[in-house]
Amino acid sequence: MSGEMKIFSGSSHQDLAKGIAASLGMELGCSETHERPNENLEVRIMENVRESDVFYIQTASTPLHTNIFEMFIAIDALKSASARRVTAVIPYMPYVRADKKDRSRISISVRLFADLLVASGADRVLTIDLHAPQVQGFFRVPTDQLMAAGIICDHLCRKDLSNTVIIASDAGEAKDVGRYANRLDLPIGIIDKRRFNGQRQSDLIGDVEGKLALVIDDEISSAKTLVEAANFLMEKGAKDVKAVATHGAFSGNALELIESSPVSEVICTDTIPIQTSSSKITVLSVQGLFARAIRRIHDGNSLSALFR
Amino acid sequence: MSGEMKIFSGSSHQDLAKGIAASLGMELGCSETHERPNENLEVRIMENVRESDVFYIQTASTPLHTNIFEMFIAIDALKSASARRVTAVIPYMPYVRADKKDRSRISISVRLFADLLVASGADRVLTIDLHAPQVQGFFRVPTDQLMAAGIICDHLCRKDLSNTVIIASDAGEAKDVGRYANRLDLPIGIIDKRRFNGQRQSDLIGDVEGKLALVIDDEISSAKTLVEAANFLMEKGAKDVKAVATHGAFSGNALELIESSPVSEVICTDTIPIQTSSSKITVLSVQGLFARAIRRIHDGNSLSALFR
Amino acid sequence: MSGEMKIFSGSSHQDLAKGIAASLGMELGCSETHERPNENLEVRIMENVRESDVFYIQTASTPLHTNIFEMFIAIDALKSASARRVTAVIPYMPYVRADKKDRSRISISVRLFADLLVASGADRVLTIDLHAPQVQGFFRVPTDQLMAAGIICDHLCRKDLSNTVIIASDAGEAKDVGRYANRLDLPIGIIDKRRFNGQRQSDLIGDVEGKLALVIDDEISSAKTLVEAANFLMEKGAKDVKAVATHGAFSGNALELIESSPVSEVICTDTIPIQTSSSKITVLSVQGLFARAIRRIHDGNSLSALFR
Amino acid sequence: MSGEMKIFSGSSHQDLAKGIAASLGMELGCSETHERPNENLEVRIMENVRESDVFYIQTASTPLHTNIFEMFIAIDALKSASARRVTAVIPYMPYVRADKKDRSRISISVRLFADLLVASGADRVLTIDLHAPQVQGFFRVPTDQLMAAGIICDHLCRKDLSNTVIIASDAGEAKDVGRYANRLDLPIGIIDKRRFNGQRQSDLIGDVEGKLALVIDDEISSAKTLVEAANFLMEKGAKDVKAVATHGAFSGNALELIESSPVSEVICTDTIPIQTSSSKITVLSVQGLFARAIRRIHDGNSLSALFR
Amino acid sequence: MSGEMKIFSGSSHQDLAKGIAASLGMELGCSETHERPNENLEVRIMENVRESDVFYIQTASTPLHTNIFEMFIAIDALKSASARRVTAVIPYMPYVRADKKDRSRISISVRLFADLLVASGADRVLTIDLHAPQVQGFFRVPTDQLMAAGIICDHLCRKDLSNTVIIASDAGEAKDVGRYANRLDLPIGIIDKRRFNGQRQSDLIGDVEGKLALVIDDEISSAKTLVEAANFLMEKGAKDVKAVATHGAFSGNALELIESSPVSEVICTDTIPIQTSSSKITVLSVQGLFARAIRRIHDGNSLSALFR
Amino acid sequence: MSGEMKIFSGSSHQDLAKGIAASLGMELGCSETHERPNENLEVRIMENVRESDVFYIQTASTPLHTNIFEMFIAIDALKSASARRVTAVIPYMPYVRADKKDRSRISISVRLFADLLVASGADRVLTIDLHAPQVQGFFRVPTDQLMAAGIICDHLCRKDLSNTVIIASDAGEAKDVGRYANRLDLPIGIIDKRRFNGQRQSDLIGDVEGKLALVIDDEISSAKTLVEAANFLMEKGAKDVKAVATHGAFSGNALELIESSPVSEVICTDTIPIQTSSSKITVLSVQGLFARAIRRIHDGNSLSALFR
Repeated sequence: MSGEMKIFSGSSHQDLAKGIAASLGMELGCSETHERPNENLEVRIMENVRESDVFYIQTASTPLHTNIFEMFIAIDALKSASARRVTAVIPYMPYVRADKKDRSRISISVRLFADLLVASGADRVLTIDLHAPQVQGFFRVPTDQLMAAGIICDHLCRKDLSNTVIIASDAGEAKDVGRYANRLDLPIGIIDKRRFNGQRQSDLIGDVEGKLALVIDDEISSAKTLVEAANFLMEKGAKDVKAVATHGAFSGNALELIESSPVSEVICTDTIPIQTSSSKITVLSVQGLFARAIRRIHDGNSLSALFR
Repeated sequence: MSGEMKIFSGSSHQDLAKGIAASLGMELGCSETHERPNENLEVRIMENVRESDVFYIQTASTPLHTNIFEMFIAIDALKSASARRVTAVIPYMPYVRADKKDRSRISISVRLFADLLVASGADRVLTIDLHAPQVQGFFRVPTDQLMAAGIICDHLCRKDLSNTVIIASDAGEAKDVGRYANRLDLPIGIIDKRRFNGQRQSDLIGDVEGKLALVIDDEISSAKTLVEAANFLMEKGAKDVKAVATHGAFSGNALELIESSPVSEVICTDTIPIQTSSSKITVLSVQGLFARAIRRIHDGNSLSALFR
Repeated sequence: MSGEMKIFSGSSHQDLAKGIAASLGMELGCSETHERPNENLEVRIMENVRESDVFYIQTASTPLHTNIFEMFIAIDALKSASARRVTAVIPYMPYVRADKKDRSRISISVRLFADLLVASGADRVLTIDLHAPQVQGFFRVPTDQLMAAGIICDHLCRKDLSNTVIIASDAGEAKDVGRYANRLDLPIGIIDKRRFNGQRQSDLIGDVEGKLALVIDDEISSAKTLVEAANFLMEKGAKDVKAVATHGAFSGNALELIESSPVSEVICTDTIPIQTSSSKITVLSVQGLFARAIRRIHDGNSLSALFR
Repeated sequence: MSGEMKIFSGSSHQDLAKGIAASLGMELGCSETHERPNENLEVRIMENVRESDVFYIQTASTPLHTNIFEMFIAIDALKSASARRVTAVIPYMPYVRADKKDRSRISISVRLFADLLVASGADRVLTIDLHAPQVQGFFRVPTDQLMAAGIICDHLCRKDLSNTVIIASDAGEAKDVGRYANRLDLPIGIIDKRRFNGQRQSDLIGDVEGKLALVIDDEISSAKTLVEAANFLMEKGAKDVKAVATHGAFSGNALELIESSPVSEVICTDTIPIQTSSSKITVLSVQGLFARAIRRIHDGNSLSALFR
Repeated sequence: MSGEMKIFSGSSHQDLAKGIAASLGMELGCSETHERPNENLEVRIMENVRESDVFYIQTASTPLHTNIFEMFIAIDALKSASARRVTAVIPYMPYVRADKKDRSRISISVRLFADLLVASGADRVLTIDLHAPQVQGFFRVPTDQLMAAGIICDHLCRKDLSNTVIIASDAGEAKDVGRYANRLDLPIGIIDKRRFNGQRQSDLIGDVEGKLALVIDDEISSAKTLVEAANFLMEKGAKDVKAVATHGAFSGNALELIESSPVSEVICTDTIPIQTSSSKITVLSVQGLFARAIRRIHDGNSLSALFR
Repeated sequence: MSGEMKIFSGSSHQDLAKGIAASLGMELGCSETHERPNENLEVRIMENVRESDVFYIQTASTPLHTNIFEMFIAIDALKSASARRVTAVIPYMPYVRADKKDRSRISISVRLFADLLVASGADRVLTIDLHAPQVQGFFRVPTDQLMAAGIICDHLCRKDLSNTVIIASDAGEAKDVGRYANRLDLPIGIIDKRRFNGQRQSDLIGDVEGKLALVIDDEISSAKTLVEAANFLMEKGAKDVKAVATHGAFSGNALELIESSPVSEVICTDTIPIQTSSSKITVLSVQGLFARAIRRIHDGNSLSALFR
């Protein structure tokens, strides 16, 4: 791309955006968002972007829909201000789990989101660890998906994993678990949850007796699933329970739930801003990974090297 | 339209939606909106809508962007559930004043909204009193715009208007004022506001001495403009000040501001839910007007009759 | 839909198409496909279809790409002949497993297929048992997905399932297996396949000792995965191995492989034409299910009833 | 933009186009337009434009629709000849006042024009002083709008404006008038026109007694509105009447009407070719302004500097 | 189509439109076209068209581009007034011969026209005798092409054709000639025109000695080609020359040229208004043919019967 | 174009692709196509193509539809791998003769193909000698059409053409014949084929007595038309018959038919792979022509020079 590279950020996660820009030796582009009394947002790009190659960073954090609209408006403003290309950098994708019609007359909302993003003018998308890999296909523009597994496994490998089993908290998540199990050469177990005669019942496929159970998921939101799994695994004889998730959404009282649960550590990344002083939460940064990806996209180099 | 007519409503203004349905002798269609811990909305249409002619009612009230997204998701769900036609009924249009580029590198956000609405699957739009009539042209689908002037003038005509002047609180609003002045056969005045040498200054073009000043606008949001105008008109000798606005947004402490101002009455409609017991606020209903328009759209009859 | 319902079929699976039409008390619409010396296809619709509600049936059987093109050309011919609506009925979806970018610089080809189908003029899609439910979202037109689980479980329930375990032959398929396990109230097991230090290794999560192992998948193509799984399960002590798959593609020497394997029965449906006299293969018909779905789509009735 | 900049012009206003090119130190690109006996136009681009950054200049002058079609055909020819980008430079926008549905069942024709222009292949638009600023939003491609107010006010400031009032000839034009009033620090007046009991009646809001009345509008076409306003202002005691309009369309006998009216001077620009030797008409040139804008668009520099 | 059928007409050929409506036992829908001083057209549909099935008739006659724009604006007005379907009925297609790039950097203008027509909102097209049959494929909407050969051959068959040869005035037209030759069972001849060493030279392939030469073309515009051909054929010994063309454009002094030429009769249809009292011109009417086609399109019946 | 030029090829004609690349001093880009047991193709681009200017070469040879799909999938993969521009280089266009609706309810399949190609992501098309020049207009992206006439006439001019007549084997091909006749300054003849009272009958317009008849067509597929024409021409007294066709499709037993016919030579090009050792077939190469065109497209130079 021959235009100048510029990085702009919405309001959702300024720390991450500044970190990415800093990793690139740049400063964030100057823009202003103002909320009118009737909640209408005014986004103004404060510097010339004609013919620039713009990366706009926004993640799916609270207030969710306001943040989404700030992104749509900013992208529209950038495009109508003649930016040559706008790449939406969305570390945590909104509505990422609404990816199928598992009930009648619902919306596949992440596909709707993808359509709206493209209608707003986005030319490319850059994200990390989508819940289902098919979601990448919902975007009508070239979309790159990074993976945090490398960063997280680097962290895990510094620990003793000799007596560890990788756990999927649901049969539907078994595939993702496989990715970690392969990289770390560890056995897997699956919690098989059913609803039978109105009763919920769980069964463990595999064995955790006396082991560290490492529960893998792509995101933790209310933490209820995780804490239930942890209690169940302890009942089944696990020695310890840790959890890994790329996206630490921690909504509601999730952090309190974790604090008072048998989970001894939750390892996640900074795709979403996390406010906690809990010693149980380990936050790894994806700043460097995103910065390297942005540089390569701008320079026209392959991203394959980032997946090792 | 040969399909069955159905009316659904989002969360923004259930009272209005129920009223419109009741005017049509119908009940609202059954749908559910559920908010997940991470703020993601799940909208589920609970009854068959195949081949139906659906009218979906949502207005731009708080929480604004959540309401907008509920509408997008609901329309997507309705269309993918094979509704034959979905008409978005939007009494108060979000972002309606963001209709031009009056500063560099901003978004014409109501046009962006129009594009997103159509990308969500809306086949038609029905609204009332857009800030600028050009906004109708931003929608890529047939769009009908109702006018509340008939309802409001009917109300005003029951009062003594013998010594009244219609006031535009800004030169830019002079055109709309003309519509009321014509209908009511009253003279007009304009408040000419400037910023000169960093000082704001106002001038009155026309005469309000000893008269009832009727300030006309399409919406009242923070009410600051209105209260300033009222104070200014009282200084200029007005006997009384009343205000008319189709859309009573009344954001922040707007109602308190009005209560303690010289404005003796604000006449608006129920395009937005209004919570107040103030005796100064007169709320006229657009339920019947919308119900008649919906009926005519479904039956393929002209809406002209609704404009008298 | 007020137009007349008509059913047309391509060359891929005339038996199924005739069966569906017969279930609806109709005959197939008249069309001709002719192949020129240079392989170019000529499709001619031989009867008037103006304002008709056409269902065009074609499945992904051999010769695959010729059949796909016959469908595209037929749909284009139907639409330009003024059919009011054309629903592509595709029992076995081509490229359904090419639904994600699991390697660099590949195509999500089922999404490409979906785009091409819509570019050809298809207004709706009707299919059954997509490999991943997200694939439904790749279609830009209303898409209904039927499920064969009801038909297959009805068949299974007539047998003795008292000592049976449901098996996923791969961690990635665990989710689908859950659907059957739930319906039949049976335990599950998963074959955990890895590639470590260049060696492939398998592990069984769960227990099949002395049991009937019922391997569930959405399709059987080369049958290599199935036969490997069966051998592995017998090694692990299974008493018997049966397999269930909606789509019996049986490509290459799949049927011979199965014949000489420990698999005692394969239960599938007729979404793809199957030529075999093997007593091991049980073929259930989806004709009635598709016929009921088509009737309901034409009449504007909900399909929910078809999912029980 | 890395491609070579080229300027082409249609038949509507060769003088302006040559002037713009000359200001840029360039010559117009070579193209030919030929009209066949059946009025069909043949436009041929006579030089290579592959990968070029083309600016095509055409204004809305007579014969209007032939000129519009010449532009559409030329843009189509340029794009199919592989021009990298084509910017339609349209000083006076056709159908610019057909921007709203102020009567039943009419077309918002300027939006239709915008759609047709984009369908012809235009990648950008450059224009000046649209009647309503919302019109910019009708274009689906980045659109820059210049303003002639700077050029016109520079001219006015060289005159004695000590006893002057800015006049809007209609309440609907009051907003534009504000822009001039602000820049020149002058009071404003508005002619309030009504139709009551079938009679047209006018009223002056503000005061012109003994003053120079400077009537502001964006365009003068038949000049009837202007001449009526001038007569009315003289009746109201104005000392002199001058008029300002960016676009001097002067259709029919407009120039004769002005010649015999009390208007002493009309100041306009050369966005439309003007053939007159009348000493009352002062034509300022927008050549330099367009040339600077084109240079900045090509170079990727901000246009903000052009608005002061 | 369940909506009511309505016929509207532009200004180009009211006689034909009224004739078509009369053949259908209907009156033309009420619409008004007004030209403003700056040539901008205002088209207003004067009756309700919601949910109607509208046929809008306009032909490519003078003033060509104004007529084209009247059609675009009318279609936009009809669609935004909620007509269910608008069929553009275009007896003589504008730019029909600009169907290929036979020189560098030109526009395939009939394809551009087709795109603009669809961008204006046309849902279908109905026309007759396109210059090349491929042009039908340029329209993105269902397009029916009628043929006048039946009407014209019926007329010819009433004459003595015993000593007649069908002539193509150019090798490029030989294909169309074949259609007539086949129907009438007559031999053909071709005038082979070349440009060699800067000299134009013609050669006759076939024999006209002592025969009636019947020159066939789809349109006659300037009549120069026809008159040259006639002179050449008389030189080659033809006894008489007659001409047949569906579209009698007769631009410039075409009628005078024909009057003073050896052509004894020109047989054409009323797809374009023809003003002449010349006894040489025989005008057959396509009113009935278009009326029958419109009826069948509305009723959903096949048009095949109209081609015999 | 500032990106790097890369040439990729599908499976249809690797020799031609390698020849083109070699003419450009390049090697083909690395890609792999793998066919799964169920015929699904997997195309993988094996090198980085971000920001590259890619030319993808595929011709319409057997297996036709598999080759077409390989191209669609490859283009989709290239675009989603962020190639800046992909030009589909298609020497022999599939479905090129399906360019009109000459029967009821058929598809204009080459236009459908054009739409599907663009839906797959192609940004440009490069081809040679389309059957009808109008086909170029079916592509929604810039399309260049080369001509083999130069190469073929260079070859012919080295022979004795003193007693030669150019023959069109059908009135419909007369136009193309003209191009050769003009270049070579030779007379033409046309075979006029009819079907009358169920009998096929042919007539020769022009004279071949004692001459070399040079039959011109754009393609030879089954060779039946050619061999019939040759026999007919020999009956009419031709001394010798040769044939010229850009595209030597030679399907079925075409080569045997030619071998045993009076045709003494067939001159064609290598747009399609030809396997024959027949001394009657002369194959000229278009490699150099395509290589020059690709270079000029990449460099932004005019292609006009290639047409002389």
